[in-house]
Amino acid sequence: MQLYHHPFCAHSRLVRLAFGEMGIEHLLIEERVWERRPEFLTLDPAGTTPVLVEDDGFVIPGIDVITEYIDETRGAVLGDRRLLPTDSLGRVEVRRLAGWFNHKFFAEVSEPLIREKVYKRYMPRELGGGPPDMAVIRAARSNIRYHMHYIGWLLKARNWLAGDRMSYADLAAAAHISCVDYLGDVPWEEDEGAKIWYARIKSRPAFRPLLALTMAGMPPAPCYADLDF
Amino acid sequence: MQLYHHPFCAHSRLVRLAFGEMGIEHLLIEERVWERRPEFLTLDPAGTTPVLVEDDGFVIPGIDVITEYIDETRGAVLGDRRLLPTDSLGRVEVRRLAGWFNHKFFAEVSEPLIREKVYKRYMPRELGGGPPDMAVIRAARSNIRYHMHYIGWLLKARNWLAGDRMSYADLAAAAHISCVDYLGDVPWEEDEGAKIWYARIKSRPAFRPLLALTMAGMPPAPCYADLDF
Repeated sequence: MQLYHHPFCAHSRLVRLAFGEMGIEHLLIEERVWERRPEFLTLDPAGTTPVLVEDDGFVIPGIDVITEYIDETRGAVLGDRRLLPTDSLGRVEVRRLAGWFNHKFFAEVSEPLIREKVYKRYMPRELGGGPPDMAVIRAARSNIRYHMHYIGWLLKARNWLAGDRMSYADLAAAAHISCVDYLGDVPWEEDEGAKIWYARIKSRPAFRPLLALTMAGMPPAPCYADLDF
Repeated sequence: MQLYHHPFCAHSRLVRLAFGEMGIEHLLIEERVWERRPEFLTLDPAGTTPVLVEDDGFVIPGIDVITEYIDETRGAVLGDRRLLPTDSLGRVEVRRLAGWFNHKFFAEVSEPLIREKVYKRYMPRELGGGPPDMAVIRAARSNIRYHMHYIGWLLKARNWLAGDRMSYADLAAAAHISCVDYLGDVPWEEDEGAKIWYARIKSRPAFRPLLALTMAGMPPAPCYADLDF
């Protein structure tokens, strides 16, 4: 399979983490969505990463569609390590929390931070590039605090975010947080439980390719790849 | 089942349309999410409608989680009228397009229009109420045009938005468009194919409760309940 992605697209990172956990080989193709390449828009008229393409050319666009598709077509082999559980209660909670991070955390924290601090450096001025808007960055840095507390609160009664087992909920949260962590904007002192959970997920083999990532001219924060942060 | 909804929440309308198509009895509870009622936030910490509650108290929050849940627990009885098809190709296309309207159309058109023209009338000033921002309304009115053309383009080769059969994709699109239509902001002259499709879905029995809806002090646009608009 081919994955059209961007190193700072948190939704793409979630797919890479899921592939890592499932041992699924894939080819990565970096896409700069702001360039709106006609060939990419043909794959997905919404023009967003990630987009997954099967060997036979079948296109699966968008994070919500991709996570369901991977589970439906390749999830069964994982047995009880499946990233989307098979019982109704588990499915509702995993989807609720994966959606929380893929949509709510994304809108309130990761999208604005990455847009202002990363994408605007690489975008030409006529496409919205330029210096970061500090008011937007301050708002996102404030918003992330209650999300960290929410993670910590969930983990008081649970082993992983959605229950006893690691799931898409954990991978989604970790994918978005890892992008923000690269920028040094995760307030790790805010919630001890959230920090312990992230240390646990960060040390998984599936996480290594993300931690090895460096952008030219914009090195990661010192804590980013440190497993003992 | 109980559905916490708002008459102008397009995602709630989608659930009501699905229930109508499936003949599922339910109780409606109107929730004004901006009041942030503690009891409602206990049901769903995200604090958004719709939220579905089963007889036994099991809570299913959020449109993406609810549509999957309804199909998984009650979809099979519909046979080949199922709103989420059972084949991979169909599932990807229905989820892609339902997501298009539930997230993209929502962000670019229905959410800003309804926030500015409806919610801000009912919200106290300290919670963001007040006169509508005309610049936001103009942007949304401009955005809706390419969505109408996209609907028309899809229907050139298809019977319904995602393929041969009516699906969540059609109900999602119709739910969002119906909210905007109440406000008189759907440019029906823009795309003939889109208009014919909407006339077809609007005449279904499941649509009647939505067309009967009127808000005190804010009557619907004349075309809203007219099946021959």
